[in-house]
Parts: sequence; structure tokens; C-alpha cells
Amino acid sequence: MDYVKQHAVKPGDKIQLKRIDTKSKGPFAGKDEAKAFTAETVKKLQDLQYRLFVEGKQSLLIVLQAPDAAGKDGLIRKVLGQMNPQGCRTYPFKVPSAEEASHDFLWRIHKCTPAKGRISIFNRSHYEDVLVVRVNDLVPKKVWSRRYELINHFEENLIAAGTRILKFYLHISPEEQLERFKKRLDNPAKHWKLNTGDYAARNQWDEYREAYEDAMTRCNSDSSPWFVIPADNKWYRDAAVAGIVEQAMSEMNPQMPPIEVDLDEIRALYEQASAKMQR
Amino acid sequence: MDYVKQHAVKPGDKIQLKRIDTKSKGPFAGKDEAKAFTAETVKKLQDLQYRLFVEGKQSLLIVLQAPDAAGKDGLIRKVLGQMNPQGCRTYPFKVPSAEEASHDFLWRIHKCTPAKGRISIFNRSHYEDVLVVRVNDLVPKKVWSRRYELINHFEENLIAAGTRILKFYLHISPEEQLERFKKRLDNPAKHWKLNTGDYAARNQWDEYREAYEDAMTRCNSDSSPWFVIPADNKWYRDAAVAGIVEQAMSEMNPQMPPIEVDLDEIRALYEQASAKMQR
Repeated sequence: MDYVKQHAVKPGDKIQLKRIDTKSKGPFAGKDEAKAFTAETVKKLQDLQYRLFVEGKQSLLIVLQAPDAAGKDGLIRKVLGQMNPQGCRTYPFKVPSAEEASHDFLWRIHKCTPAKGRISIFNRSHYEDVLVVRVNDLVPKKVWSRRYELINHFEENLIAAGTRILKFYLHISPEEQLERFKKRLDNPAKHWKLNTGDYAARNQWDEYREAYEDAMTRCNSDSSPWFVIPADNKWYRDAAVAGIVEQAMSEMNPQMPPIEVDLDEIRALYEQASAKMQR
Repeated sequence: MDYVKQHAVKPGDKIQLKRIDTKSKGPFAGKDEAKAFTAETVKKLQDLQYRLFVEGKQSLLIVLQAPDAAGKDGLIRKVLGQMNPQGCRTYPFKVPSAEEASHDFLWRIHKCTPAKGRISIFNRSHYEDVLVVRVNDLVPKKVWSRRYELINHFEENLIAAGTRILKFYLHISPEEQLERFKKRLDNPAKHWKLNTGDYAARNQWDEYREAYEDAMTRCNSDSSPWFVIPADNKWYRDAAVAGIVEQAMSEMNPQMPPIEVDLDEIRALYEQASAKMQR
């Protein structure tokens, strides 16, 4: 299946989340089939990441945004975090620290963008500055409304330097979210995650939806696309994201670099060392 | 088996690497048995890391040092990097950048030490400043010889803040290293790793051995121990390091924190949300 085509927001389209299914199972009969696909695709990701690293020319930025309990952490643990940590790093963005808040909103973000050959995974991102910040009036409309353009310019600069950007919105229904909140309540080992704020955000569901729709409509292009991932089924969420990243990285087509050392010289050194060893 | 006891350098002892076997198989009949142990232990590490993260009080610093081809990267990929990347980060230290070199040698290191609840894995470390720097006379003896004490003071400060430090030397024989260099020569996909410098370092094997012995003798304590890991068998190397980290983290015994939210309040919010959903 062409996961990219299936889930990419079309540039120019005004997206309407309500019209997008949260429960899709894609091409899979069920869980086991999807998990087998994901496991296989993760292996391909590991191989592609290795080649990207050795090539050292392009980089990849993966942005994850979602309502609470939609599964960013699970997706990182089971799929994206399976790539070699020496070339792939996860950055969680929380409420800005005092130092971060004293800079422009892209300052802390820029420090975490991937170097050549590397992958950065953003758990939340600069998009929070047009999401939570907008919904809760943390800055005046005049300020946040300029940020779509600022974000586009910021991303253009990354793209110009050889960074590919993939942005995922994990699309969960309010019913499924409530189910998951219930599971946290029923499991004492998950009680540390409980938070009255989760329910407050539920009361702003429509405001968040609108803010997401605006962000995904206004900051979306072929070189920095948004994907809306049906996330009520964890196994479909994992499979679809794995599939999209795999397609994108295959397209980037990282190549092992030409050998710059003199192989004959190395062979001679090896023979010398070997002779010395046998003495 | 008590891997900690087996492989820890005893504080106060003057270590002699030549007297330590590189080929140990520990308690394992062979590869498969060791791999099964490692897989099982990695699961325990994942659980312990989760508890460390949620507890948010202690942190863990793992330092890896070794001759080339001894397997730091494989160990990270197969064992240490299997912990959740959101709580466990790998830092490779290469030749210092111009900015790094313009500071004291611990400046770039300090920025990468783990916050509370987190794990840092150092692929090479501040110990390079008494290893490669010493062997190749990159600074005068007067400068590097003071660094043992500076390192001890630096590590004491981390320990005082709740950081546990585990330092591993992967102990490989020159014969096994040469074997692995040969395998790189024979495999075109590994040619990008080839480097005449690898053979130059082999000619300094004894100087490196002495430098390692000094570092491990002079910067070694119960709260910041060195471990010498027999590394000719990759599967034993992985098993022993997994075993040691597991023992140390079990001793740290991270506890899920007490719940600070009012469960009844959360339950009431859940019931409200649920009733609203059914309307």
C-alpha cells in the first residue's frame, strides 16, 4: 500500500479532521498481520538509517503531534526508537524553561534539528506554539497568527540544507481517548500519568481541532508534508507511520560513499600487522 | 553469576590488563545460551529504565572505552540502545570541535551528563583526555597528569547529585582486533570504516595499555567503578555488560513515586466526560 499517498495532506487542501476516519485498519485483516508488517518495516528502517548515517549528506526530521494518549510514546518505543540511537535522537519538547521562553519560539527547536546523516524525532515541536499557545491564549492572536509564516520559513531553511521533514498528526477519537484514560485509572502502575489537565483539554477538543486544521493547512508542502494517521488502532498507527518513513527514506535513497582510502595501502598495513603477530 | 564482582576493578588495586583474559565465556556453554541471557536481561533493563524515569530522582551514566573494533557500537545497538530513547541518550565524543577545544576538557562532557531519571551513554568520554591525548603527546605531561584528579573531582560532583557511574573497558586481544580489521577489508559494505590510523594505534598498543591501566587504577572507586569486559566473544561482551547494568540498576532500586493527584477527583472527571460522551 502507498501509505504516503493514503495519509498525506494534499498541499493547498483545507483539511477537515472530522472527515478523516480514526479507526482505519488499512490493508490489514487484523492486529497480527499489521504487527508482522511493522516488524519487517522496522528492519528496513534500520538498514536505511545506517546508510543515511554513512552517507552523511542528508538528514531527516520527524515531527510528532497528537492529543494526549494518542500514542506518541508507544510509537517512539516500538517503531522510531528502534533505529540506532547513535544516529537517531528523540527530543521531547515540554513547557519552555525560563531560558527557552526568553528567546524566540524557534530557538530551542533549532538546536535539536538533525545534522547531516542524522535523524531527529520531535515529541511535540514548534507546532505547540500555534496549538496549546493559541487555544489557551498564552500569547495574543497577533503574535501566534504570524507564526505559520515564520514556521514555513524556518522549515524552508532546513529543507535547503538537505533535511527531509515528515510531520505526523496521530488522529484519535475522543471516545478512544477516554477509553485509554480509563485504562490508566484502572492500572495503578499508570497512575503517575494521571492529570486533571487531560480532562480540561478534552473540553477544548473543538478548539484544538481547529488549531490543528489551521496548522496542517497553512504549514504543509510537498517537501514538508503533514500526515494524518488513524490512531484508534495502535497497530495500524505503528504500521502506517513505519510505512511512510520507509517510503520517504527509500526515496531519499542514501548511498554508501565512495571509498576514499587506498585499499592497497590498508591491505599492506594488514599484512605487516599480521606478519608481526606471527613472530 | 555476579557479573559486577567478576569484572569490577577493585578500588586500590593496580590493574594489569595482560593478566585479564579477553576470551572468557563466563558461565555460558556458547553463543546461543549467552544470547538468550542477554535478551532476557535487556527486558529487565527496559523495565528498570522505565521505573528510573518515572521515579525521577536518580540518574545513570555509562561510560564506554575500548580499542577500535572492540565493539562499542555493537554493544550500544544490541544492548544499551534497547532502552527507551526518551529516557536514555547516547553521546559519541569525537575529536573536539574548535569551540569544545577552547574550553576545559570537561566542558563538553558536563553538558551531556544525565538529568534526574535519565541515562546517558558515553561512546568515548573524558577519559580520552588521559588516553589518546597522553599516548600522542597532544598536551604536555604536566597537563594530562593532573587530569586524573580533576576527573575524580568531576565524577564526585555527579555522584553527589544522585548519579550512578559505570565505566566499561572492552578488553580485546590484538589478534582478535586484527581478525576484525580483516573482516572489514573483506566486506565492501564496511570499507567506509577503513582507516590507516587504526594500524598506527596498533603500533602503540603497549602505550595505550599503560594509559588505560593508569586511568582505571587512578580513577576508580566503589561509587564510580571500572569494569574490564572480556570482549573477544561479542556475545559474552553483551551478556556481561547487560548483567552488570542490570545488577547496578536493581541496586538503585527505582520506585514508582507516590500518586499526588486526587484519584477521586480524576474518577469524577472521567465519569463526567463519559456521561457527556453518551449524550
